[in-house]
Amino acid sequence: MTRPASTESSHGTADRAPLEHQGSSQPMAQERPLRVAIEHVEPELDGGRYPIKRVVGETITVEADLFADGHDVVRGLLCFRHERQDRWQEMSLRSLGNDRWQAFFDVIELGQYRYTIIGWVDHFATWQRDMRRRVSAQQDITVDLLIGKEMVEEATRRASGPSQQRLKDLQARFSRSDLQAQLDLLLGQQAQEAMAENDRRFSSAYDRELLVVVDRPKARFSAWYEMFPRSTTDAAQIHGTFKDCESRLPYIAEMGFDVLYLPPIHPIGERHRKGRNNNPRGDAASVGSPWAIGARTGGHTAIHSELGSLADFKQLMAAARTKGIEIALDLAFQCSPDHPYVSDHPEWFKARPDGTIQFAENPPKQYQDIFPFNFESDAFPRLWNELRRVVQYWIDQGVRIFRVDNPHTKPFLFWQWLIGDVKASYPETIFLAEAFTRPKVMHHLAKVGFTQSYTYFAWRTSKAELMDYFTELTTSPVREFFRPNLWTNTPDILTEQLQHGGRPVFMARLALAATLGASYGIYGPAFELFEQRAQKAGSEEYLDSEKYEVRRWDLTRQDSLKEFIGLINRIRRENPALQNDDSLQFHPIDNDYLLAYSKQSVDGSNIVLIVVNLSPHHVHSGWLQLDLAALGIQANRPFQVHDLLTHAYYLWQGPRNYVQLDPHSAPVQSFTVRRNLRHEEDFDYYL
Amino acid sequence: MTRPASTESSHGTADRAPLEHQGSSQPMAQERPLRVAIEHVEPELDGGRYPIKRVVGETITVEADLFADGHDVVRGLLCFRHERQDRWQEMSLRSLGNDRWQAFFDVIELGQYRYTIIGWVDHFATWQRDMRRRVSAQQDITVDLLIGKEMVEEATRRASGPSQQRLKDLQARFSRSDLQAQLDLLLGQQAQEAMAENDRRFSSAYDRELLVVVDRPKARFSAWYEMFPRSTTDAAQIHGTFKDCESRLPYIAEMGFDVLYLPPIHPIGERHRKGRNNNPRGDAASVGSPWAIGARTGGHTAIHSELGSLADFKQLMAAARTKGIEIALDLAFQCSPDHPYVSDHPEWFKARPDGTIQFAENPPKQYQDIFPFNFESDAFPRLWNELRRVVQYWIDQGVRIFRVDNPHTKPFLFWQWLIGDVKASYPETIFLAEAFTRPKVMHHLAKVGFTQSYTYFAWRTSKAELMDYFTELTTSPVREFFRPNLWTNTPDILTEQLQHGGRPVFMARLALAATLGASYGIYGPAFELFEQRAQKAGSEEYLDSEKYEVRRWDLTRQDSLKEFIGLINRIRRENPALQNDDSLQFHPIDNDYLLAYSKQSVDGSNIVLIVVNLSPHHVHSGWLQLDLAALGIQANRPFQVHDLLTHAYYLWQGPRNYVQLDPHSAPVQSFTVRRNLRHEEDFDYYL
Repeated sequence: MTRPASTESSHGTADRAPLEHQGSSQPMAQERPLRVAIEHVEPELDGGRYPIKRVVGETITVEADLFADGHDVVRGLLCFRHERQDRWQEMSLRSLGNDRWQAFFDVIELGQYRYTIIGWVDHFATWQRDMRRRVSAQQDITVDLLIGKEMVEEATRRASGPSQQRLKDLQARFSRSDLQAQLDLLLGQQAQEAMAENDRRFSSAYDRELLVVVDRPKARFSAWYEMFPRSTTDAAQIHGTFKDCESRLPYIAEMGFDVLYLPPIHPIGERHRKGRNNNPRGDAASVGSPWAIGARTGGHTAIHSELGSLADFKQLMAAARTKGIEIALDLAFQCSPDHPYVSDHPEWFKARPDGTIQFAENPPKQYQDIFPFNFESDAFPRLWNELRRVVQYWIDQGVRIFRVDNPHTKPFLFWQWLIGDVKASYPETIFLAEAFTRPKVMHHLAKVGFTQSYTYFAWRTSKAELMDYFTELTTSPVREFFRPNLWTNTPDILTEQLQHGGRPVFMARLALAATLGASYGIYGPAFELFEQRAQKAGSEEYLDSEKYEVRRWDLTRQDSLKEFIGLINRIRRENPALQNDDSLQFHPIDNDYLLAYSKQSVDGSNIVLIVVNLSPHHVHSGWLQLDLAALGIQANRPFQVHDLLTHAYYLWQGPRNYVQLDPHSAPVQSFTVRRNLRHEEDFDYYL
Repeated sequence: MTRPASTESSHGTADRAPLEHQGSSQPMAQERPLRVAIEHVEPELDGGRYPIKRVVGETITVEADLFADGHDVVRGLLCFRHERQDRWQEMSLRSLGNDRWQAFFDVIELGQYRYTIIGWVDHFATWQRDMRRRVSAQQDITVDLLIGKEMVEEATRRASGPSQQRLKDLQARFSRSDLQAQLDLLLGQQAQEAMAENDRRFSSAYDRELLVVVDRPKARFSAWYEMFPRSTTDAAQIHGTFKDCESRLPYIAEMGFDVLYLPPIHPIGERHRKGRNNNPRGDAASVGSPWAIGARTGGHTAIHSELGSLADFKQLMAAARTKGIEIALDLAFQCSPDHPYVSDHPEWFKARPDGTIQFAENPPKQYQDIFPFNFESDAFPRLWNELRRVVQYWIDQGVRIFRVDNPHTKPFLFWQWLIGDVKASYPETIFLAEAFTRPKVMHHLAKVGFTQSYTYFAWRTSKAELMDYFTELTTSPVREFFRPNLWTNTPDILTEQLQHGGRPVFMARLALAATLGASYGIYGPAFELFEQRAQKAGSEEYLDSEKYEVRRWDLTRQDSLKEFIGLINRIRRENPALQNDDSLQFHPIDNDYLLAYSKQSVDGSNIVLIVVNLSPHHVHSGWLQLDLAALGIQANRPFQVHDLLTHAYYLWQGPRNYVQLDPHSAPVQSFTVRRNLRHEEDFDYYL
């Protein structure tokens, strides 16, 4: 198959859309029947129904089956454009064999790109190929040469501008040449290039324009820290403020986090306010749950007075920015009974026959402090627009990251509309879906627009579970749209593993989250101070949960994990291998307590190999079987692995290497791999 | 999840199309936001771009992911209709768990059906479920009971006709009851049924209506016999006629074939007519190739005068019909230089600068006796319509099966249009694609409409090749649209295996074709008389090929395979297991010369197990490891296998059983499996 080689058309632009669709039911209406079939374009999500996701600077490899009837030469182009551009850019497809073709494009701007494939039969290239065969077989080519000449003449008549001039030049040279020179001329590169687009008007186009949402790099690579802003003073009795949060910033920055997520910062309802440990009857001293949003003083666009003013909040954002930290707010679309919406817009809630408003429930469980919105209300357009206005309000204050509370209890179409509308104007906005629910619901939220998603990581503890889950997330079609954000813990989730494993298990879980996931998060200081007390046995609720009270944390504790976390986050920043999810590869190791995996940077220059001892109790050792080919390591040469945590260096050779991990000193090894050690040939005087 | 249980709606009909689409970009325009998402509908081919295939009487199992936000009860319907019907029929989806749902429908008419999925949130069913939970938790239900009552009242106001009457009855009974009876009433089946469709007006519909082409059973299960009508006399010098073919019918019927495929029956060109063994210069005695279609006496709608008249042909068709045999014609859309089209419509061919017409070539190979049509000619609409007229002509004579010669050298859109147009009026028509080309091209021809397709079977000879290929054909998405027709040989293909294996290899290949494929064919009498002489070593061309001469065959030869073929075809007819491809399952056997596989009838009542010795040279034996669970056999009870070829009976127990096959006596064993042997419990006086 001849490769399309016109430099101009390979990287050129065209101001028209890809041509008519294939598979038209009325071929007779066309000037000439389109002959190229285009199928199985990848990446393509659900038949093209939803966009895939990438971040700025990434390259998208597009493949397609492309073929025609018969034996003619076909050409194909990958066409792409940013949705704000009118002109399509193009890249020539190159054949991979078996009718599979490939091309690449880079996404360099935020927003949405469209891409599709066109293809056509290239009659002149076919003529060139056949002509070479005739020449090789020493056949009489006189008449066939005339056919080629006529093709050029016909093309010249139809062309205009510079391409017509090039064809005219070709014709002029042809008329001055002898037979052999004429043949050389028409078989040459100049003719090929001048004629390359000649049959393009008979292109088939793939029947969908596919979409890719391009986010900023933080959508792919981010380290989140969740903190209750009111628990930031030295005394549990004193309600923390945004000012106190500001003094906490250096601590968070030293640990290396770049997103600080605050639970709702709005006024908290008073009716049915919860007391400590979720006591349904709080008392005067109860501070209430920040998720019971709204009081006489305001709702979703107001700030809880005890935290400070809007100016204080903006000051906190600015201060965070200087430390490389971005503030993420919580979008919890629900109300306390005291929220102004309840009196101003009772039509946005479900009314009960007794005149009361329906509180949240999952029968028989009841949550009297929360009124859910009725998204199916007859007044839903005004409700939805109001919630859109809430988001706009915080965007206007400078917020660009939102953690969304329980998105799976609001209609998918609501999110598709809201996120789409926000990102049309603010494509840098990141929405993290906090949906701990059934897998298809979680996936669908990601499809309709969420930038990142919470995962089941907290509950994946054994080697087999971790391997299965992360193989699915990183190798199945899910990888095209679902960006995992791995949380070790949340105010709702103190896993049973964390309750009983002590410091080693906190270290292992931190390292797993931070290296299995390019994005991860912890809820602190509970995590780094390894808070492990549950409300009761068999519960995942924290005892004395910050959800219902102000806590004081001793950040100066000697055994704090802050140094370890800081080191892990530095390793993440310094090693591009850890800044993507797609390169994840597990390596066999003959001990079910040891988990080994590697990641690589996109260019392959940076490799990180992680080994974790999943047991918090015992020293474990095993033989690691590295996939050297996947890592680009030669089997017959030694290579160096350097543990970035202990700074130990090891020389290994071949796939099989011994590892041993003591959970009480270092439950994790995080190696960089150096492929090419110096050898005698590299010695200065060797030659 | 509550199961939708309204008998009326489960099997009812609706005279409206499935409601608005999901994923609308403007949810605000809707009366109420649609909440159900519908994804991953199966079967679905290429995102719904092409129809799947079935035959009349088959059941289609449709599955889909269906879910809503939150925890409400959802309901879904499979909607389907024959394209000639206006009304959709419906089947309730039932949950398979993990948000996967399933329903079935039967295709009982030829033509195209459409199917799709709709789903909605069922608020009344949700209320019922929650109510039961409240009752269990002994909560106060007074107000919630009123909510249920209001839902019924609201539904009554909107309903009409019998459904309104049912709701009114419900209300009347409610008003006469005490609290407990009211509760029982609203939680009861009558209320559930009366309210089942109440929220249907807020249905989401899958965004595609998917298509299934329904063919007659012969599309799935057929035994083809290819024969040159001119080679049907007792002397090679005498050109056979349709009358001679008629006398051959009993012979073909005894072998059990139900399709008799004749190479082109049209006048044969004289210019550049080929001589024996493809000699480019034939002489006066040369009969020429039937594929060089057209002479002064006519073209694609004429009959070669030496074969007889149209009346003779129709008489042959009628006689064949009485034997259960259908005549298949060859659609070879190409011309000899003498075809009337060449002078009447030179614009349908490619003109060369020297005034000649371009003959067929694949440079440097040249085929001067054939002029291909130029499907890209400016006059292509008239050309295409003329070829459509050719098909109509033979349809008007009663032909309903066409074997299409080299369809992969004509545009896909041509076939999509032609086959679509023919089948719109004659849905019983079968088109077999003779495309031996790259896999994606073969698959695409099947997608655009071909009923059956030739395969690579002839070249799949080893155990691993056969298992790989037939696993792909019967378990990958290809099974939804590509119906394999397995040919042991054709006039173009005498495989090297057949040239050297003798009688055992002919028997093995026949049995493989006839049992691996529900449809298969042989080119005879070359096959049953095991013609194995190639034109030269390394060639797959027959020596003294019938393509270029009249042959005489001695059908009475003692060693003919006709009895064996007749037996195999009888086994196929008597065992529904062999009448489908989808149930194919290979069973491990510890000898690479032995291949074992089973098929089952759709209802599982008929099982056939085949074991083939692939070596024509040696006796081979091995231990067969049956997948008893897949065959529905109990491991702790003996079962009977009965060889339908030798009439031997064996009692086996457990998965591991010994087999031994002598290629010179019986290279094939074809067992029926009887699962339940009588046991002491079955003895009349046991109890």
